[in-house]
Amino acid sequence: MRVSFETMFNEFKRVLINIGFSNNKARLCARLFSESSLDGVYSHGVNRFPLFIDYIKKGIIKIHNDPVRIQKLGIFERWDGQLGPGNLNAYSSMSRAIEIANTNGMGCVALRNTNHWMRGGTYGWQAADANCIALCFTNTMPNMPPWGALDKKVGNNPLVLAIPRAEGHIVLDMAMSQFSYGKLNIYLRNNEQLPLPGGYDTDGNLTCDPSQIKETGRFLPAGYWKGSGLAIILDLFASILSDGNATHMVDHSGDEYGLSQIFMAWNPAKLKSENLKQTFVTEVVNFIRNAEPATQGEKVYYPGERTLKTREHNRQHGIPVEKEIWDKIITM
Amino acid sequence: MRVSFETMFNEFKRVLINIGFSNNKARLCARLFSESSLDGVYSHGVNRFPLFIDYIKKGIIKIHNDPVRIQKLGIFERWDGQLGPGNLNAYSSMSRAIEIANTNGMGCVALRNTNHWMRGGTYGWQAADANCIALCFTNTMPNMPPWGALDKKVGNNPLVLAIPRAEGHIVLDMAMSQFSYGKLNIYLRNNEQLPLPGGYDTDGNLTCDPSQIKETGRFLPAGYWKGSGLAIILDLFASILSDGNATHMVDHSGDEYGLSQIFMAWNPAKLKSENLKQTFVTEVVNFIRNAEPATQGEKVYYPGERTLKTREHNRQHGIPVEKEIWDKIITM
Repeated sequence: MRVSFETMFNEFKRVLINIGFSNNKARLCARLFSESSLDGVYSHGVNRFPLFIDYIKKGIIKIHNDPVRIQKLGIFERWDGQLGPGNLNAYSSMSRAIEIANTNGMGCVALRNTNHWMRGGTYGWQAADANCIALCFTNTMPNMPPWGALDKKVGNNPLVLAIPRAEGHIVLDMAMSQFSYGKLNIYLRNNEQLPLPGGYDTDGNLTCDPSQIKETGRFLPAGYWKGSGLAIILDLFASILSDGNATHMVDHSGDEYGLSQIFMAWNPAKLKSENLKQTFVTEVVNFIRNAEPATQGEKVYYPGERTLKTREHNRQHGIPVEKEIWDKIITM
Repeated sequence: MRVSFETMFNEFKRVLINIGFSNNKARLCARLFSESSLDGVYSHGVNRFPLFIDYIKKGIIKIHNDPVRIQKLGIFERWDGQLGPGNLNAYSSMSRAIEIANTNGMGCVALRNTNHWMRGGTYGWQAADANCIALCFTNTMPNMPPWGALDKKVGNNPLVLAIPRAEGHIVLDMAMSQFSYGKLNIYLRNNEQLPLPGGYDTDGNLTCDPSQIKETGRFLPAGYWKGSGLAIILDLFASILSDGNATHMVDHSGDEYGLSQIFMAWNPAKLKSENLKQTFVTEVVNFIRNAEPATQGEKVYYPGERTLKTREHNRQHGIPVEKEIWDKIITM
C-alpha cells in the first residue's frame, strides 16, 4: 500500500505530540522521518519510526533535551546532544555548521552524547539546500567485524558528502558495510539473493545469501580492508573531536546511544569559489553520466540522482509502506 | 637487492641537485621519496622516481615554482601550486594547515594547479608527527570506470586520514580503486592472482587476473558503487574548494598535471580534546586488535600498523629495490 507524504507527516506528528513533543519539534521530526521515506530510505524512515518511539518510551531518547554548546574556538564548536532525539540534534548541528560557514566560509561542529541520526543523507540534502558543501559522519555501536575478524568490533559509521546544484544536488550517503541491515532485510523478505557478496556464510565463505549473513552477523565492509579501515578511523575522528564515546562505548546490551558525530559545512559563495557559480558541477556530472554503460540499456548515475527519481515517483504515487508497520503507527 | 635508507636518500638528492633543485628542496624531496620506499610504498617511492624526473625533463613539473597563496578567509586558505613538484607542494600545504591548526584549532588549505603528490600517506604521517589529526585528498586523471560503466571517467582519488598516537600513529591511505595500479603490477610480475576480484576481464566478468584487468583497464572501485560515488564527490570537493581542475580537465594525452587537493588539520591539544590526552586511542585500537581473527594464526590490524612493521624491517635490512630501476637511478 502507499500513503501520501502529507498523510505520513500528519501521522508522525500526531504520534510525536501524543508522546510529549512540542509542536515545533514534532513538526521537524515528522518532516525528517517523512522525507527519508519519500526519498526511498524506508529503513530509516517509516520502518524505523516504531523503534524510535520505543526508545523514547524506554527513556533512552530524551525528547525534552536540546544540544548545549560546551566549547567554541573560532569556527570549531563542540556540542553535547544530551541524548535528545538524534535526528533533531543532527539537524541542529548541521544548521549551526551552515550558520558558521555563512559568516566564515567554513564551519565545523562536533557533537557528542547524541542518538542515532536516522538517515545520514538528510543532513547532506539540508546543507545543499542551503547552498553549502557538506561533509558529516557518525559512529555507531559495533555492528560489523573489522577486515579479517569474526566478531563485531567496528561500526558501519555512515559518511555523507554533499554538493549543491540547482538542477539537483550531488549527495553521497554511504555506510561502511557493503549492504545495510535494512537493505539485507529487503532482499530477505523478497526471497532474493544479493547482487554481490555482502558477508560471510557459516563456513566462512563470502556469500550473496542474506539469510546466511543474518545468521553469522558477518557483514562485509565495503571494499574489504578499505571500508573497515575507514570505519575505524572515522570513529576515532568523531570521538576525539567531540570528546565523546567511541564505538566500543556505545553498545549497552544492544541498545545504541551516546554517539559521536561531526558536521562540516563550506559556503562556496563566501569562499568566492568560481567553480560553483559556473556550470562546472553539471559539467563534471555530465562527464560521468556520458560514460558508456557496461550493460546495454543501463545508465551511469551520479550520487543522489536516483534519490531524486524516487522522491518524484513517491510524491506522485504515494510512499510505499508495509501494512503491518503502518497499522502499528496509526494506532499509536 | 636492498639498499639502505641513507644510500637511497643520497642518490635521490644527488639526482635532484643535478637536475637543478636547490639544496633544501632536494633534501626534502629526496627524504619524501626515500620514506615512502622505507614504508613499503615502492610504487610511489623508488619505482616512481624515474617518471618524476621524466616529468621534470618534459617541463610538466616546474621545479623552481613554489605554491602561492591566492586567498585567505579565516582558517581557510586557497593556494596555487604553480605546477611545482607535487610532493613538495603537498608537504607545504599540510605544513600550512598544521600551522593554522596550531593557532586556531583547525586549518583547511585548498591547493590547485599542483602535480601528483606521490604517496598520499606521507601527509598523514607528517600531520600525526606534528600531533595533529588530518584529512586530505587529491583528484587524479580519469583512471577508473565509474560503477556500471566501461570507460575511465573518474579518478581513483586517494583519501588519507590520520590520528596521532605516541605508540604509533593511525594512518589510513586509500585510493578509491580496490587495488592500485602499483599493486596490480606487483601481482603481475610475481605471476600471482589477486586475492579478491580487482576488475573486469574481456568478457565483462569480475576477475582476480591482473593481466586481464590491465588489458581491459576496468579497475574495480572499492566497494563497487561506494568507492565510485566517493571518487566522484571527492573530485567535486577538491576542484570547487580550490577553484581548480576537476578530473576530466587533468588528462593531457596521458600526462597528468594541474591537480586539485584539500588538506585539513586539527590540533586536539588546542581544541582541548581530553580523548587524545588519555589512553583513549590505544583503547580503541586494542578493541579492534582483540577481535577474533577469521583465520587462525592471523591478526587483525589497525590502519598504519603494518606500515610501521615494514618501516622497521626495511630500516634493519635495507629497502628492497628492483635492480633495473636502481641501476637507472644511480646512472642518472
